[in-house]
Amino acid sequence: LIERKQLRARQRIIAAAAELFADHGFDAVSVSDIAERAEVGRTTFFRYFGDKQEVVFAREQEVLDLIAGEHLEIPRSGDRTPTSALRALEPVLLRVCDRMTSSPDGYRAHMQLVDGHGELRGRDAAKMRVAAERLSGLLLAGGWDAGPAALAAELALACYWTARSTNPDPEDLSSATRNALRHTLELGKSR
Amino acid sequence: LIERKQLRARQRIIAAAAELFADHGFDAVSVSDIAERAEVGRTTFFRYFGDKQEVVFAREQEVLDLIAGEHLEIPRSGDRTPTSALRALEPVLLRVCDRMTSSPDGYRAHMQLVDGHGELRGRDAAKMRVAAERLSGLLLAGGWDAGPAALAAELALACYWTARSTNPDPEDLSSATRNALRHTLELGKSR
Repeated sequence: LIERKQLRARQRIIAAAAELFADHGFDAVSVSDIAERAEVGRTTFFRYFGDKQEVVFAREQEVLDLIAGEHLEIPRSGDRTPTSALRALEPVLLRVCDRMTSSPDGYRAHMQLVDGHGELRGRDAAKMRVAAERLSGLLLAGGWDAGPAALAAELALACYWTARSTNPDPEDLSSATRNALRHTLELGKSR
Repeated sequence: LIERKQLRARQRIIAAAAELFADHGFDAVSVSDIAERAEVGRTTFFRYFGDKQEVVFAREQEVLDLIAGEHLEIPRSGDRTPTSALRALEPVLLRVCDRMTSSPDGYRAHMQLVDGHGELRGRDAAKMRVAAERLSGLLLAGGWDAGPAALAAELALACYWTARSTNPDPEDLSSATRNALRHTLELGKSR
């Protein structure tokens, strides 16, 4: 019961912050404003979030935890190439895209907030660096060497950024990422 | 003459900041400390750098300007594929690596400073996002479509991050990046 109450408090904080940021902009809203709107104390806010920026990236943090909990399907053949590594990451990456955009309106508002604010863009880009490390970690656990693991993790993330940079509808982020992956896996075949 | 004096002032600020950050850490040093050590006023500091973080990334800013000034060698055949785009970016990317590491000791100190500080990691990652946009811009100017341009720019950056994540000696960043590019361009050929 306590756990459920805590989860609801966290969700209230996230929702309150999103509303306040959308209405007044990130800089004009304080942690106290968010706590008040969410009907929690500042202490409760800081139990869940390290600072005001962190509440913006609650979803990203969930995605990073999701990646850490994944296990890759290991190819039956013994090949541990960059190609097989990238193929093994594909389902994880697409689940990440789906989770990121599971609330399309929330995703749109989030991206607008982040893209319009220098510090938030930095925090976002730093979170994606952590995502690359976690993807690489999955490959290491799956038996790939450090070199192919790092390369495939970075290429997977590059496909996500490619999709994102074309500003697709949230519903299309996943398919745009899959498309970028397909092109990447065909690089050697064309000039 | 005035221009040369200004350039020297800028260089003194960068050198003074690097020394102070190395000795005391980023947070313990103020803009006033840097200005004093560089024998300039605070106003002069802010003529060259938007804030204290920005002086850490003076070299990255030079690299971003370098990219903007590049022109790609256009392949003779009319093919504007992701593969030809990535190949066209290769020499630019390797020049970027060489410029970044042209002072090996400076590069080592820079990376140590950035990797050990959350906000600086964020600013660094955000600069790399700008680099991706600039690389993509070069391809657009060279006649590639937006899709292949975005993909190849992200893949080029992924190769740089792959090289960087293996923590090579500064002297080896360029060859490690070239190696990652080679593997990327061979993805479709192996399983």
